[in-house]
Amino acid sequence: MQAEIIAVGTEILLGDILNTNAQYLALELAELGIDVHYQTVVGDNPKRLENTLFHAFSRADLIITTGGLGPTEDDLTKETGAKYFQEELVLDERAFKRIQKYFQKTGREMTQNNKKQAFVPKNSTVLYNDNGTAPGIIIEKNQKIMIMLPGPPKETVPMFENQVKPYLQKRQEYTFVSRILRIAGVGESAMETKVKDLIDAQTNPTIAPYAKDAESILRITAKAKTKQEAQSMIAPVAEEIYNRFGHDIYAEGETNMQTVTAQLLLKKAKTIATAESCTGGALASALVEYPGISSVFLDGTVTYSNEAKQKRLGVKQETLQKYGAVSAETAKEMAEGAANTAGTEIGLATTGIAGPNGAEENKPVGLVYIGLTIDGVTQVKQCHFVGNREKIRTRAVYTALDWLRRELLK
Amino acid sequence: MQAEIIAVGTEILLGDILNTNAQYLALELAELGIDVHYQTVVGDNPKRLENTLFHAFSRADLIITTGGLGPTEDDLTKETGAKYFQEELVLDERAFKRIQKYFQKTGREMTQNNKKQAFVPKNSTVLYNDNGTAPGIIIEKNQKIMIMLPGPPKETVPMFENQVKPYLQKRQEYTFVSRILRIAGVGESAMETKVKDLIDAQTNPTIAPYAKDAESILRITAKAKTKQEAQSMIAPVAEEIYNRFGHDIYAEGETNMQTVTAQLLLKKAKTIATAESCTGGALASALVEYPGISSVFLDGTVTYSNEAKQKRLGVKQETLQKYGAVSAETAKEMAEGAANTAGTEIGLATTGIAGPNGAEENKPVGLVYIGLTIDGVTQVKQCHFVGNREKIRTRAVYTALDWLRRELLK
Repeated sequence: MQAEIIAVGTEILLGDILNTNAQYLALELAELGIDVHYQTVVGDNPKRLENTLFHAFSRADLIITTGGLGPTEDDLTKETGAKYFQEELVLDERAFKRIQKYFQKTGREMTQNNKKQAFVPKNSTVLYNDNGTAPGIIIEKNQKIMIMLPGPPKETVPMFENQVKPYLQKRQEYTFVSRILRIAGVGESAMETKVKDLIDAQTNPTIAPYAKDAESILRITAKAKTKQEAQSMIAPVAEEIYNRFGHDIYAEGETNMQTVTAQLLLKKAKTIATAESCTGGALASALVEYPGISSVFLDGTVTYSNEAKQKRLGVKQETLQKYGAVSAETAKEMAEGAANTAGTEIGLATTGIAGPNGAEENKPVGLVYIGLTIDGVTQVKQCHFVGNREKIRTRAVYTALDWLRRELLK
Repeated sequence: MQAEIIAVGTEILLGDILNTNAQYLALELAELGIDVHYQTVVGDNPKRLENTLFHAFSRADLIITTGGLGPTEDDLTKETGAKYFQEELVLDERAFKRIQKYFQKTGREMTQNNKKQAFVPKNSTVLYNDNGTAPGIIIEKNQKIMIMLPGPPKETVPMFENQVKPYLQKRQEYTFVSRILRIAGVGESAMETKVKDLIDAQTNPTIAPYAKDAESILRITAKAKTKQEAQSMIAPVAEEIYNRFGHDIYAEGETNMQTVTAQLLLKKAKTIATAESCTGGALASALVEYPGISSVFLDGTVTYSNEAKQKRLGVKQETLQKYGAVSAETAKEMAEGAANTAGTEIGLATTGIAGPNGAEENKPVGLVYIGLTIDGVTQVKQCHFVGNREKIRTRAVYTALDWLRRELLK
């Protein structure tokens, strides 16, 4: 089944509202194995709405609209849908009673135009709205289906979940299952090159590469009669990809590096302290995002000044004078100092030049040293990050967490 | 000028990514007085992308695309644009050099397909990308304009702001000038109530209220022939709003609380140290976002454990035992301990329950104490924040910085 999602609302066109419904419906339809080829946003304009709907039906069998079901005159989704299916609008008594009841409940007075919301296309299925006044509608005729949902997500989502999803599931012959492999330390193009042969060879499952912030992602999607069948089609492909990337694949599905590293710290029950210069607390903050981290993350320092590095961490003055604050030697002493002063098994430290200023000879903006000490063994990694101050700091945090993750897996 | 926004990317169609670019561009174009009648999302599919672009140009003069400029084979926006304008793709030496440089800097190996990103349609204007490898493009021919922007918002937004906006402003008969007043500590509806009479009375300039994260925003927009004229129309309205909100208005334009507070710290040359529990480094990290902060921000601690609070900051054991780590007393000693141990004039501390766990009797999730000591005088603020862990931590940081800002203004 070919589907399109149409959001009706000038407030979205003007940017006053973010179209989160489109993402929600896209995810749900993908899970149902319904292909979505287009998402469109159109304003509350009769002609353009009609053009959009008719054009969409010229290439798709299923159109899901959000919005334009309200009581005001410029809410025209039902009228336009009725026109396409050549059905007149008739009053739905039950919908009308529910609207009256809704207003009694909320103690608000029902205005005449609210009655407009109870009119629905003849021969349609009414989706009664438990979270608002506008009922949704399903019309099905000549192999074409239109599903009209209200605009506010708190009405759209439950109505889809409880009434539309079961309706669509019944008609789906195939199910689509995806596995998302998250890859760290490999650029998008390098990643694609590494699996190009697989991508070219596969049709079902398919392999789609993309990049997100500091990471690269491979999505494997299989189409099959059952979820189990789809999963077993994906398994060997995923295995082959794991063989090629190993620990570069840091996780699957919806998660992020700080979550994975924090979970690993908790699993290994390794206590950690952080010492930060250029990342300025962002490393600690990333770990602290994870609830329950307090049992292993005991202490962090943001030793921005040389004095703080000496006082808080015991970094030697000679080291700072001889090699500078941004150096492998300082990173080493910071990591060890963090672990020693906090009495933790792990010390993780960052020192670098986030820019835009602060560059010195042989020390360009983006130069970052990461120090990591685990159970008394200390290593230092030298990195060069590009981008603005924010990007450099973000990548430094990401790289530090990724390195810690890889070491914990050894 | 009639415009359309097209997002290219299967990951948006699948719902993996929320199309925030569309909202950003919609807002910007509205401010420029450019009408947007349609937003479309299409996948990385040659035929459908071509249909979408050609169809859009059949009804609009300006098409802005986001995405599809990457190095992989399924990135086809440039190819499709070149086809519409009947221009061949040629290598842009400067773009190529920038890409090579990018890879040298990052120490990553440049794969052959990265060169693809340096090919641009003949007779087009190249928008060089300071935040990624893919250059943007402007093609203008036969009264049709296509502007291609990269997909990641971190690249899209600055490229539009710095290179596309000035280009579009030049072609507009009327100029739209906006002043954005950022308001802290006042809820959106409270803010709106306070200026409702002004909003209702105004047509040009218009006053638009909206909320963003922890802050409320008033946008005053005037339409005029010249920038100066527009500005002088806005001035009296802004003045009236300042009279009503005073220091609640913490800044104007595109900035944020950490920037404003950091600048104020530098202006007053007040040294500061932070001590964080529930915010876990996010407070220090917010200050460190500001370049040059190192001259006043000397030291920060993330004292997550009670031991760290005692050892790093000298919080008394009795205090922790008697009142608990989340208490006004602990917040006070943390703030004073931060300033004393770091030898700074200011100490700013947070301790609270970010949740989802950790709530105790009379200490619900969202309870946060902020301690602030300036030149030996210490105050403590008790706050109750709602939302998830992330939201509570964000609001705690924002509120701490806002409080410091207000104190520095006294």
